[in-house]
Amino acid sequence: MDIKSIQKELKENNLFGEIFTLGNLFLEEDILEEENQILELTGFSGSYALLFITQKKAYLFVDGRYELQAKKETDRRLVEIVKLSEICFTDWLKQNLGKPNRRIAYNPWLISIDTLNKLQTAFPQTEFIPTPKPDMRLSPKKAKIFSHAKKFSGLTSTDKITALTRYIKNKKLNAVLITSAASVSWLLNLRSDALPYTPLFRAYALITEKGQCTIFAENTDCKNALPFKALPETLAKYASIGADFCTTPAIIKDFYPTLTNTPDNIIEEKSIKNKTELKGCENAHIRDGAALSKFLCWLAKNYAGKTETDVAAKLLSFRKKELNFYSESFATIAASGANGAIVHYHASKEKAATLKKNTLFLLDSGAQYLDGTTDVTRTVALGTPTPDMIEKNTLVLKAHIALASAVFPENTRGSELDILARLPLLKYNLDYKHGTGHGVGCFSNVHEGPARISLTAKNAAPLKAGQITSIEPGFYKENAFGIRIENLYRVAKAPKSNLLKFEVLTLAPIDLTLINKYLLSQDEINWLNSYHAKVLSTLKKYMTKQELDWLKKACAPL
Amino acid sequence: MDIKSIQKELKENNLFGEIFTLGNLFLEEDILEEENQILELTGFSGSYALLFITQKKAYLFVDGRYELQAKKETDRRLVEIVKLSEICFTDWLKQNLGKPNRRIAYNPWLISIDTLNKLQTAFPQTEFIPTPKPDMRLSPKKAKIFSHAKKFSGLTSTDKITALTRYIKNKKLNAVLITSAASVSWLLNLRSDALPYTPLFRAYALITEKGQCTIFAENTDCKNALPFKALPETLAKYASIGADFCTTPAIIKDFYPTLTNTPDNIIEEKSIKNKTELKGCENAHIRDGAALSKFLCWLAKNYAGKTETDVAAKLLSFRKKELNFYSESFATIAASGANGAIVHYHASKEKAATLKKNTLFLLDSGAQYLDGTTDVTRTVALGTPTPDMIEKNTLVLKAHIALASAVFPENTRGSELDILARLPLLKYNLDYKHGTGHGVGCFSNVHEGPARISLTAKNAAPLKAGQITSIEPGFYKENAFGIRIENLYRVAKAPKSNLLKFEVLTLAPIDLTLINKYLLSQDEINWLNSYHAKVLSTLKKYMTKQELDWLKKACAPL
Repeated sequence: MDIKSIQKELKENNLFGEIFTLGNLFLEEDILEEENQILELTGFSGSYALLFITQKKAYLFVDGRYELQAKKETDRRLVEIVKLSEICFTDWLKQNLGKPNRRIAYNPWLISIDTLNKLQTAFPQTEFIPTPKPDMRLSPKKAKIFSHAKKFSGLTSTDKITALTRYIKNKKLNAVLITSAASVSWLLNLRSDALPYTPLFRAYALITEKGQCTIFAENTDCKNALPFKALPETLAKYASIGADFCTTPAIIKDFYPTLTNTPDNIIEEKSIKNKTELKGCENAHIRDGAALSKFLCWLAKNYAGKTETDVAAKLLSFRKKELNFYSESFATIAASGANGAIVHYHASKEKAATLKKNTLFLLDSGAQYLDGTTDVTRTVALGTPTPDMIEKNTLVLKAHIALASAVFPENTRGSELDILARLPLLKYNLDYKHGTGHGVGCFSNVHEGPARISLTAKNAAPLKAGQITSIEPGFYKENAFGIRIENLYRVAKAPKSNLLKFEVLTLAPIDLTLINKYLLSQDEINWLNSYHAKVLSTLKKYMTKQELDWLKKACAPL
Repeated sequence: MDIKSIQKELKENNLFGEIFTLGNLFLEEDILEEENQILELTGFSGSYALLFITQKKAYLFVDGRYELQAKKETDRRLVEIVKLSEICFTDWLKQNLGKPNRRIAYNPWLISIDTLNKLQTAFPQTEFIPTPKPDMRLSPKKAKIFSHAKKFSGLTSTDKITALTRYIKNKKLNAVLITSAASVSWLLNLRSDALPYTPLFRAYALITEKGQCTIFAENTDCKNALPFKALPETLAKYASIGADFCTTPAIIKDFYPTLTNTPDNIIEEKSIKNKTELKGCENAHIRDGAALSKFLCWLAKNYAGKTETDVAAKLLSFRKKELNFYSESFATIAASGANGAIVHYHASKEKAATLKKNTLFLLDSGAQYLDGTTDVTRTVALGTPTPDMIEKNTLVLKAHIALASAVFPENTRGSELDILARLPLLKYNLDYKHGTGHGVGCFSNVHEGPARISLTAKNAAPLKAGQITSIEPGFYKENAFGIRIENLYRVAKAPKSNLLKFEVLTLAPIDLTLINKYLLSQDEINWLNSYHAKVLSTLKKYMTKQELDWLKKACAPL
């Protein structure tokens, strides 16, 4: 399929336009390249976008992270970029619909019931028409499933299902259909190798009030799974079924019209890690910090002549040696110089830039270990940084510390904390066009809900003790450099109070050559020194003598 | 009416309970004492509460500001205090309803359509029954109305109604019913002397798409107003009418069942002050600051032997001399020593405490001027403060400065800024049980929506340029002292950016004897010095020589 042939079909069927989303039937951001219809149609490779093709034009809606990248990757004669930071799709459609009584096509596997409801409410006179024979966009590649042992998950699948049956009974339902692959994977303690970075078992699960479980999956070696085409007849066996309308494709409501909107409570439950998971994550972060620190030591001496992909491969080789390593947790962003200003840059082997002296190198990477998931960004000065780089990096560090050292009441949303990180930059009229933090799973999604730290995610769920979140302010100077400092933290109860605080998990030095001490307050200096003392004392036993010498300098008190 | 006789009636009518609110048919917090049914029934005099009387008990729901006061004012044998900081009414009712199929009475003039809808949704099996012959709780005292001149309001009533007709047409309605007295007063440029502190013309207005206006009011000298009993037949003349369900009594929906929920757009429109209003507010604050500063100078030398009500009267005498003075904007909180820890303390003449040496004196007051409304809190050390008082006051000052000096993007809610003010206190495990800021009207309500700065007002509207807001963090040590530092600010565009900032309106010295300079950063010291320089340079021409000598010391740079 290409844009022109879609436009031809739109004309033939008297359709104003068609909505294309980026995901597959699991409505999650982690997908295979061959499943990504927006990539296929436009060349845009970012992790979030919406494409609206009209008879004459194609409009690609992207957020702040992807504005530069979308420009670079798409053919501007065919595709017009619309910035979601300026207008949401609904408002844009209101302005561009012309007559209200239009016909718009959508794929009912790829849009949630909730999204469709909202569109129908916002455009009551517009007809939204499901595409005939809708494609689930599921890769034919066969996935191997495997179980996630209790020593990592802390709870058996039976424990988890028993808890869920209480929820089902409480909601007075016969069953719930769980359509989020992350929720299903957590509930069943199952994982698979379907995706390169996220070990999810991509399945739906129908759980009854008695705890019986029917799995729907295709292209896996799961023996007792039914194909998705068995959904209508299976659902029909139960008088009352709930599903989360935000995570359930619109087509399910066609299969089972009396479906009840029942929030997927696993989303919150799995975000609050149990003791086993927290201990596992802590351990995984120590090993990951050791690997990253060894790499940074290697990089300092060996960057000359290396490309972005060379050093990403080298980092992976360090991580692969660690216990419980499974895979990277996303495609490493190894960005040299001006590439760092592309927030979600990804170097291809052919086009990878060479690391250069007197530039900044931004490295955002992470790994899946059986006991935990990591995600860390460090910005490193190769050679001598300019005063501008040092000033901006110091402001980003201030931003990071301001949030990382905060305490806050229970029931506080991430959107109510974001300003703490953003303000040190805003005061200089600087900003970053992305959120400040996201939840992180445990041997699962590196981006996990329901909490988020973002001024624009105004209604995201409050942060809760036991969750893991990133803190990652940045600064990006187009065509010059990018800076981001990212650690993961667990949310914990502060002692002797009803407050919550952040406890650091990520352990790796923050480049001291990029810090102007005179821009930091004594409290900020104390935070950094105490962080570096912890990095050094925890990681020293994993270092060779040469690495330890380097680490001691990298963690020296300011 | 008293609680016992209400309980008798509940039994006779087989009712589980009855809901009592504090307001009258205008559903606003500004009411006359004789209109306040909760005061009548329980003795509680605070500005917000909900009373739920069951056959056996009466439950008074109050927020953090009023927890101490409610305890003091009510008879604990009759009334149980429920803290809204711990549980909301709906959740409390869920826990205490026993059987779901109860019958609960409410007064349909005193509960909004929205509140009733929410109760009916939360308790689908409970029957909510309007009380027969419901009382509007409107005082029989006759009010005089008067117009608010264009030189103060900036726009004529005709201008405002013309703009509103565009909104009515846009909503495809024949008319809207405005039930908020503040909105009606603003729209018609009318005021009245009905209330002691808020010069509102308490009326409903029905505005048609052609701009015709029907006023509904009682007990005023407004000649062309209809009585409220004329509402059903008047509304019946129009095919489609909108009203804001959040500000419209449930009974209106009984009068006109097809009423459409149409947000009262005046609420936002009037919150964004025009140039005339902004200039007027600025001038009003200069005069108010002069009066308050003269008072503070007088207080420093004359507090000995004076009571809380004596000094409040003295402050009023200074304000009365100022141009355009109309009234106080709320009952002055003049709180000596431990009374300061009662957040919304009000001294009666009989029980007023005497000001004492070596205590703190908290003074929260404001005035209505024809050109603007003021609201300011200063905490003053009489004699020598303790190190604890100085430390806590300095932390409150840090909290105030942290928010007052912030910049933030458009579309930021107050709830997303509150943490800036709260964090300097939270870091010491201190907090204040009230919001950080509220909107302020222009010769209108001293508490004005739609914006608020509060962690608990999670969905309050974003702050917009042209609004006026208070910033008022505090700290309260029960049985010891209270501290609050409150200024009003206008929200303004920050130069050369898309950001917003706060520009100070309130001008009066902040007690230097209560500040530990060594707890302040250089930025904080600069903020305070620059604020005091502005206070001095603006107010000096209004001071006598003796007052000026005092003011120079009070505004000396740290």
